[in-house]
Amino acid sequence: MTDNHEEWVARAREVAAALAVDAVERDRANAEPSAEVKLLKSAGLPALLIPEDLGGAGQTWRTALAVVRQIAAADGSVAQLIGYHYVNAANLWLAGGAPVQRRLGRLTARNQYLWGDAVNPVEPDLALTITRTGYLLNGRKTFATGASSGDWIAVTGRVESAGAGAGAGAGAGAGAGHGGEHLLAAVPVTAPGITFGRDWDNLGQRLSASGSVTFTNTPVPAQDVIGPLGPDVTPLASAITPAIQAVFGHLYLGIAEGALQAARTYTLSSSRPWVLGGRDSVTDEPYLLAQYGDFDARLAAVGALADRAAAALAAAVGRGSALTWAERGELAIEVARLKVVATDAALDVTAKVFELTGARSTASRHGFDRFWRNVRTHTLHDPVAYKRREVGLHYLTGQTPDFTLYT
Amino acid sequence: MTDNHEEWVARAREVAAALAVDAVERDRANAEPSAEVKLLKSAGLPALLIPEDLGGAGQTWRTALAVVRQIAAADGSVAQLIGYHYVNAANLWLAGGAPVQRRLGRLTARNQYLWGDAVNPVEPDLALTITRTGYLLNGRKTFATGASSGDWIAVTGRVESAGAGAGAGAGAGAGAGHGGEHLLAAVPVTAPGITFGRDWDNLGQRLSASGSVTFTNTPVPAQDVIGPLGPDVTPLASAITPAIQAVFGHLYLGIAEGALQAARTYTLSSSRPWVLGGRDSVTDEPYLLAQYGDFDARLAAVGALADRAAAALAAAVGRGSALTWAERGELAIEVARLKVVATDAALDVTAKVFELTGARSTASRHGFDRFWRNVRTHTLHDPVAYKRREVGLHYLTGQTPDFTLYT
Amino acid sequence: MTDNHEEWVARAREVAAALAVDAVERDRANAEPSAEVKLLKSAGLPALLIPEDLGGAGQTWRTALAVVRQIAAADGSVAQLIGYHYVNAANLWLAGGAPVQRRLGRLTARNQYLWGDAVNPVEPDLALTITRTGYLLNGRKTFATGASSGDWIAVTGRVESAGAGAGAGAGAGAGAGHGGEHLLAAVPVTAPGITFGRDWDNLGQRLSASGSVTFTNTPVPAQDVIGPLGPDVTPLASAITPAIQAVFGHLYLGIAEGALQAARTYTLSSSRPWVLGGRDSVTDEPYLLAQYGDFDARLAAVGALADRAAAALAAAVGRGSALTWAERGELAIEVARLKVVATDAALDVTAKVFELTGARSTASRHGFDRFWRNVRTHTLHDPVAYKRREVGLHYLTGQTPDFTLYT
Amino acid sequence: MTDNHEEWVARAREVAAALAVDAVERDRANAEPSAEVKLLKSAGLPALLIPEDLGGAGQTWRTALAVVRQIAAADGSVAQLIGYHYVNAANLWLAGGAPVQRRLGRLTARNQYLWGDAVNPVEPDLALTITRTGYLLNGRKTFATGASSGDWIAVTGRVESAGAGAGAGAGAGAGAGHGGEHLLAAVPVTAPGITFGRDWDNLGQRLSASGSVTFTNTPVPAQDVIGPLGPDVTPLASAITPAIQAVFGHLYLGIAEGALQAARTYTLSSSRPWVLGGRDSVTDEPYLLAQYGDFDARLAAVGALADRAAAALAAAVGRGSALTWAERGELAIEVARLKVVATDAALDVTAKVFELTGARSTASRHGFDRFWRNVRTHTLHDPVAYKRREVGLHYLTGQTPDFTLYT
Repeated sequence: MTDNHEEWVARAREVAAALAVDAVERDRANAEPSAEVKLLKSAGLPALLIPEDLGGAGQTWRTALAVVRQIAAADGSVAQLIGYHYVNAANLWLAGGAPVQRRLGRLTARNQYLWGDAVNPVEPDLALTITRTGYLLNGRKTFATGASSGDWIAVTGRVESAGAGAGAGAGAGAGAGHGGEHLLAAVPVTAPGITFGRDWDNLGQRLSASGSVTFTNTPVPAQDVIGPLGPDVTPLASAITPAIQAVFGHLYLGIAEGALQAARTYTLSSSRPWVLGGRDSVTDEPYLLAQYGDFDARLAAVGALADRAAAALAAAVGRGSALTWAERGELAIEVARLKVVATDAALDVTAKVFELTGARSTASRHGFDRFWRNVRTHTLHDPVAYKRREVGLHYLTGQTPDFTLYT
Repeated sequence: MTDNHEEWVARAREVAAALAVDAVERDRANAEPSAEVKLLKSAGLPALLIPEDLGGAGQTWRTALAVVRQIAAADGSVAQLIGYHYVNAANLWLAGGAPVQRRLGRLTARNQYLWGDAVNPVEPDLALTITRTGYLLNGRKTFATGASSGDWIAVTGRVESAGAGAGAGAGAGAGAGHGGEHLLAAVPVTAPGITFGRDWDNLGQRLSASGSVTFTNTPVPAQDVIGPLGPDVTPLASAITPAIQAVFGHLYLGIAEGALQAARTYTLSSSRPWVLGGRDSVTDEPYLLAQYGDFDARLAAVGALADRAAAALAAAVGRGSALTWAERGELAIEVARLKVVATDAALDVTAKVFELTGARSTASRHGFDRFWRNVRTHTLHDPVAYKRREVGLHYLTGQTPDFTLYT
Repeated sequence: MTDNHEEWVARAREVAAALAVDAVERDRANAEPSAEVKLLKSAGLPALLIPEDLGGAGQTWRTALAVVRQIAAADGSVAQLIGYHYVNAANLWLAGGAPVQRRLGRLTARNQYLWGDAVNPVEPDLALTITRTGYLLNGRKTFATGASSGDWIAVTGRVESAGAGAGAGAGAGAGAGHGGEHLLAAVPVTAPGITFGRDWDNLGQRLSASGSVTFTNTPVPAQDVIGPLGPDVTPLASAITPAIQAVFGHLYLGIAEGALQAARTYTLSSSRPWVLGGRDSVTDEPYLLAQYGDFDARLAAVGALADRAAAALAAAVGRGSALTWAERGELAIEVARLKVVATDAALDVTAKVFELTGARSTASRHGFDRFWRNVRTHTLHDPVAYKRREVGLHYLTGQTPDFTLYT
Repeated sequence: MTDNHEEWVARAREVAAALAVDAVERDRANAEPSAEVKLLKSAGLPALLIPEDLGGAGQTWRTALAVVRQIAAADGSVAQLIGYHYVNAANLWLAGGAPVQRRLGRLTARNQYLWGDAVNPVEPDLALTITRTGYLLNGRKTFATGASSGDWIAVTGRVESAGAGAGAGAGAGAGAGHGGEHLLAAVPVTAPGITFGRDWDNLGQRLSASGSVTFTNTPVPAQDVIGPLGPDVTPLASAITPAIQAVFGHLYLGIAEGALQAARTYTLSSSRPWVLGGRDSVTDEPYLLAQYGDFDARLAAVGALADRAAAALAAAVGRGSALTWAERGELAIEVARLKVVATDAALDVTAKVFELTGARSTASRHGFDRFWRNVRTHTLHDPVAYKRREVGLHYLTGQTPDFTLYT
């Protein structure tokens, strides 16, 4: 593996610069992020984590998370798309065997395919009915980030019990699950029976293609089943949750850093000292300077922890099947810490940048609220109060949370 | 004077209820608030502060501010319109003499006229050129809240020095100012030479009709001059600043109260306990309950101070020309205290209500972000850090700020 | 009743001024507050709430709480003593009948007796064994504020079941409780069998005489039984909890106000502008001024709510036996709101006043930490997080807490 | 150089464990920290940073700061002593030439000498009068941390102008300064004319031996002059300020970590669930868990930044005389960021640990307040608001602060 971290970060920064140009307009349009996805692909970002021998760039999570953070500074939605993609496709290496890794890994690398998902665990499970060649997938998920704009969809479904599916006895080769089992599989967006709701119209992350998806007898051939994701999950496969939560932390941090940079540009170009404050220059405003300093310092601390958590994720994934539950638990807590501080800092910074830019900066054309809207929307994914609880229970007792798609 | 405080508050609550029905849609439309203004008028709210002998309701500022707070809970923009109106029309009693009070007071009461303004002190002064019968008004103001949707506009202008206006020597009766003097006057929106920019497209307070206005040789007859508003202002006339700042405090508080009530409705009807939290009911969620409690307690404290500040304003205005500079100074500080705590609480509550309602509440159709957008936008009117400074200087030294249109 | 509110507040201020002179030294000495109690008595403060026809001053809770707040500004411990006294003696009017009110009310007023208590509900109940003339009291309470330095002790005990006390059948007149009943009674500190631990050596409230007390066969004559305080309590008797919690809120607020005043005195007399800040005078330091202003504004809001809560308590108690459970519930919530905001503000202000006074102000001789130590210690009485929960549950559902000695 | 980082940290942890045993009692005694200093010496900590060829351990600042943090968890005062020592002795390598490095470096390593200082820049300069063999030192410094308990004192003095010192013309060899120059020198505590005030009696850091020192004609031989420390300072010599500020950040962080650990021990051994909360175990208390989690997460972020800043300091010092002003400026900002977040987190955590341990934990014998007192006292060293300003100005403009002993 060749570590080209800085090079990839620089490439992500270029993508971010391109996205920043019309971020406000695109946010308002609330369209499918087709052009954005093309940009990601032409930069080669989707294949970043895929091993070199399968045609990917062979980088680690450290780099993937840095890419998410860079892009988030310009466009939180697109950062969500690429970050979720990394997690969704990573299931191949965390939960899958060599055949599916090779098949879908190569395919993804060669085409720079983007992966979305349909796994929201709060909703009823999708159903996998056993057929001769695999499964039929049925059901609906309300929030399927990236599914409608991507190429493949990572899905989790529950294998219907024997009695439910006629002909289940026929089995489906190596990939066949038993009744009740939860399986993780990959479905191409071009498969039959997939309908997208295109119904994501929310406060923030507006271009994240997070609308609903419905599957109606969508065939899932056995070769596209990645592996089990239920109670019998391995520590490595379960690392998918720390991975997605690490994406969240970097997403929030990146958005906040973007907001502060945007404020800086505005302050320097457009702000004026307060008429009653007696200063000649905005760079001599005492409250403004202290507030900028406070934000920069706080984001630096979150950033240092983000780097540490990213390194921990990369190390854990690097352990492969040797990863233990105890190591997985410590990783989850480290990532939860990041989630907590990134949430707090990003909500605060993005809400208060207006105090750094002033009354006229609220004009809609500046779109400075998009940073807050993005953070405000996504940080509700799962309640941060319960993340604090997790971290606190661990601090007190050493206990780490059981695997769920939230913990 | 008959104090019908509770009755008027109840009436405002009815107006608020009507406004709440389609507040989200109206916010999005960003149109001129014509229907909203009609609603205010049909409830008789514009004449609230006008003395009974001139046809008004003869209530005090205590009631006017309570009305602003009630309406703000449903629609911050409309609360701004009525609050600014109270301040603009109040100039008649604070700065004007009996003739103009009688003339414009009666007119306003009889027609439930709404007053906007064009006084933004950060921008260059409007020019008043002396004519035989009064003045010609020229210039532009960027933020003229309520002007385009109201009936009269309170303006401040600077009388052009003698040499500038030919025939100035002819004077203009009692109302004629000398060169350099700042005068306060009232201009009907129907006067010639008024152009509205209809260019208010900002993050929040979207229906507050806060676009620009341009005056081109708009005649201001001497009888519509209210009085001087410069260095030679009286304590009473200068109370216009504490009045508008008290409106701000009540506006922010009311918006926050509205946000919390909206969250409550949503929580009770639509929220679910956290899937991993182990509670059956959302009303047993420990973090949710504590957060609601924290917000209710904080708003109660701000509310108690708002009532106290409103009583102080009513008392000060009630002193009439007996009001001293020292009394005016203490009033300004009390109102500044309110501004500080109302700003902090309202920004916090409106940003965090989403944590009380959860991820699905970010759907655009709920429009829960409008509370935050409204507070975020208006609290930038003048920097709250400098208000803290004012209050702190007074606490340390007893010093009160000199009169400006911000202090 | 003659309302001499301002006069009594002025008197309390004089007592506070006297206490302030050597507050630091007395705090360090950690002695029994004998001289302090004498000062309270010589000012006539203990009889403040006692009806005029029994020889008291006949003031309301509004004044009693204002007295607590004034004294707290100088000495939190002494404020706790007088505040707890008001609550303890108030049991006569909340829970007692006319005979005990007359007897102990007159006695207390005539001698300016101070009441402590031994009622900590977290610990095992004291035992009341029925005798021919009343009860024998046995047991221990760890925190018995004011007991060792006062004249009477309000106790709650559980009447031992019939089998336990020989001769219980003889009864004890009107005051006799049945087995298992919780009774409230008054015991003079001079009664036999009382031992004080003199073991209160804590971080703060060091002079509050909050050590332990042990009762060994201490006789409680029937005439000193005040009334029941168990499940069959009346709304009026149960108002003792809002009363003590209101004392807490005023205590914290008063301490914070005292801390800020002390900081002000120090800043004006001893602080210097920051050597690198470029200002000539400390009253031109931007961060200092804003911080003072922030604290003054926040304490003003808490103060306004404190006044409102005090008025609510006075009104509720004024309703006498007509007080309903619903009214009692609303009162409890209003007081809980105050407790929440007073706790937050007082902890914050007392910890940060040092930033207003600077490095040299940490010299032990200034004793500026006593404000924080006092607030920090007492605010742990019952967890404020659960008060937030109470207020939040009420906000959401209208539910008010059942009566306990904490709610 | 052999990097034995982990080994030294472990050794520091042992010292910390020994210090923790009687930290409360020692804090109360407020004595000279003689035994504590012996403990540091017997662990070999004073020679940690001294190059191996001079007999030291040859570790980097990364390790030195980690040692400070470990010891701070148990005893903030002793952490201050060793941290200041590292900075004071480091002047030899930052500002001195080879001869003084060799002489005093060897001496210090061989004897595990501890260095205090007398350099408070707010006070008048000490005077250095030129003599035939060096200088005579005169003057007084109020806060001379470690001087009275150490072996050598780092002093800064101003060379008196020619006319002032008779015989100045004779010069003093290589070390002789010109009139007005600021020199840095080392003085053994056994030198004549040194008087210690033993007058440090402050809220916190009570064992830091931070009392005053007076020099009366104390001879400073030329060979003990380290170098200039005035306007003509080199980037490397000026790195002494980032070094001391980095010590501050690690000190605050370590104290906060110690406080949280102490709270944990108490919670697990002594706390009980809230009587009205309905939980059986304290480890199921929702608010307690979330608060522990919040603190752990925040300290993790500060810790990650602390590690990053420590590495930056080590790298900068490692650059030696190649260090540029620009690099020094960036280092100063990175350290300032740490100072800001460490201050905020440490003040918050140490004040609120009581909410994790509860009312009974305020008993004086637990001494839990010492953490807060230590942080509260030392964080006032220089105003953190101005550090925010520095960081903010840099964020906006790229500007870094000029060298002073605070920046």
